[in-house]
Amino acid sequence: MKILFAGAGAMGARFGALLHRSGNDIVFADGWQAHRDAINEHGLKMIIDGVDEGFVHIPAVSPKQVEGTFDLVFVFTKAMHLDPMMQDIQHVITDTTRVICLLNGLGNVEVIERYVPKENIFLGVTVWTSGLGGPGIVDAVGTGAIELQQVHQIPSLFNERLLETLNQAGLNVIYSDDVKQSIWNKVALNSVLNTYCTLIDCNVAEYGHYENNRILTELVVDEVIAVANAEGIVLDKDALVSKIEAVYDPQKAGNHYPSLYQDMAAGRKTEIDYLNGAIARLGTKHGIATPVCLAITHMIHAKESVKKTHR
Amino acid sequence: MKILFAGAGAMGARFGALLHRSGNDIVFADGWQAHRDAINEHGLKMIIDGVDEGFVHIPAVSPKQVEGTFDLVFVFTKAMHLDPMMQDIQHVITDTTRVICLLNGLGNVEVIERYVPKENIFLGVTVWTSGLGGPGIVDAVGTGAIELQQVHQIPSLFNERLLETLNQAGLNVIYSDDVKQSIWNKVALNSVLNTYCTLIDCNVAEYGHYENNRILTELVVDEVIAVANAEGIVLDKDALVSKIEAVYDPQKAGNHYPSLYQDMAAGRKTEIDYLNGAIARLGTKHGIATPVCLAITHMIHAKESVKKTHR
Repeated sequence: MKILFAGAGAMGARFGALLHRSGNDIVFADGWQAHRDAINEHGLKMIIDGVDEGFVHIPAVSPKQVEGTFDLVFVFTKAMHLDPMMQDIQHVITDTTRVICLLNGLGNVEVIERYVPKENIFLGVTVWTSGLGGPGIVDAVGTGAIELQQVHQIPSLFNERLLETLNQAGLNVIYSDDVKQSIWNKVALNSVLNTYCTLIDCNVAEYGHYENNRILTELVVDEVIAVANAEGIVLDKDALVSKIEAVYDPQKAGNHYPSLYQDMAAGRKTEIDYLNGAIARLGTKHGIATPVCLAITHMIHAKESVKKTHR
Repeated sequence: MKILFAGAGAMGARFGALLHRSGNDIVFADGWQAHRDAINEHGLKMIIDGVDEGFVHIPAVSPKQVEGTFDLVFVFTKAMHLDPMMQDIQHVITDTTRVICLLNGLGNVEVIERYVPKENIFLGVTVWTSGLGGPGIVDAVGTGAIELQQVHQIPSLFNERLLETLNQAGLNVIYSDDVKQSIWNKVALNSVLNTYCTLIDCNVAEYGHYENNRILTELVVDEVIAVANAEGIVLDKDALVSKIEAVYDPQKAGNHYPSLYQDMAAGRKTEIDYLNGAIARLGTKHGIATPVCLAITHMIHAKESVKKTHR
């Protein structure tokens, strides 16, 4: 398959390398020039579980300069960079280009729909992780899985071929009939842990050690569930809270500082508008009060603006 | 007048020195030994507006060791240390000992009432400020004023004498008929600025620069006003918000980090339970939802617990 990665950061580069190795024709589109230059000069270096697996050779171009047509586009930007990325690559999107979006947060499909017919969009959620060890270097651990669903569920030969292609690369994809529920569960988890850890200034295990963390967790989860219900999504509160609490274990991700915390620390814009911010917007739409998500959203934005001033 | 300062930190020491100079008989009761030792060995050094005014000689003892009787007790602890202080000095409280409480936050009178008849308690609010430049050194600027009210309003000769004594010391006291409203206004201001600045990690001017600070402010102010109403206190929202916004000016207190921020930074326990925490408790009592105050209270407590672990 001919596959474009619209965004070849940590996740995009890791997936691109896996799909290249299993025989697909990959192109990276990425806005970071030093990263593209390193990939084009030496190849993409792959360090997996601490083992140097050598270089993978995939062409990397800036998004506006992508040429040709593709069977598949993987979008792998941060949520707030999705719309500019779609604008930059829209010249290579045809009626038969399928797009896969595994991004965190709410509202991403609505962005992609402005550029791609709904029946060509696949929405998913993944537990794969990845990191960059500098420009042109993937430094990642473990494996993961993907839950994927066609937004407009229309059975086609392409769908079968797609799953086969992704699984041949070892991506562990299962087709879901209810990926939206999984996305909302992940949004709820991130709307709790990403934000509270950032405002309290702690990692996930430390949040778990605070004796009344359940009160904080439920203040957000209750708002997310109320808004999800209004959107036709049913979430199981007990299961969701248990899933959040399972992450506190230092043997698991407990010692991890969430991505939003890391974005804030590095002075980058955060994804808050696609987490608690999206909950608050949808709350307004449905007439549901979401004061805690609204307060958290604006505290995070205030923190972004202070960080900016301090730099 | 014979006056005991139950707590002779920055504010107590400054007021004690003023009342000593105007001819009163002052005793300091304070739990900080190095501070007492410095005061007893050299006297209390007064630096006001950068000018060294020399030493004031006032005896300083530990609270449990106070002896004699007093016309007046000024309580000047942090809110969470008020109850242990009252326990420690209760042996010197008689039927005619008057107690003045100018502490921030809600619930202080209820604590003092366990030790002192209601008609002997004076409740107030002050804009005086002060600081310590180390043990035995007051380092303070400007002047202030005090709004004072007898909790059970019973006219007496003592009340006139009290106001005269305090004003002879230059404390600028006015007798109020509605000090509770002023206390609630101050609680609202502190429940906004102290907490948001601590969680966002900014000073007051930076909070004021965040373009949507009004949303954050109103989320707390609306909860405070609803609870105040249930307690029979009417607050003027527009006036209150204007008062909060007036503080952003860097020419005023804008470049100031609020006391709760400073307590947190120094690893001290904060007064959150007497600000947003008290609002949330009273909300529960009256069946009024206060999710934002509850979330803020627990984020602050979580931050305290993380700070403690890090030390």
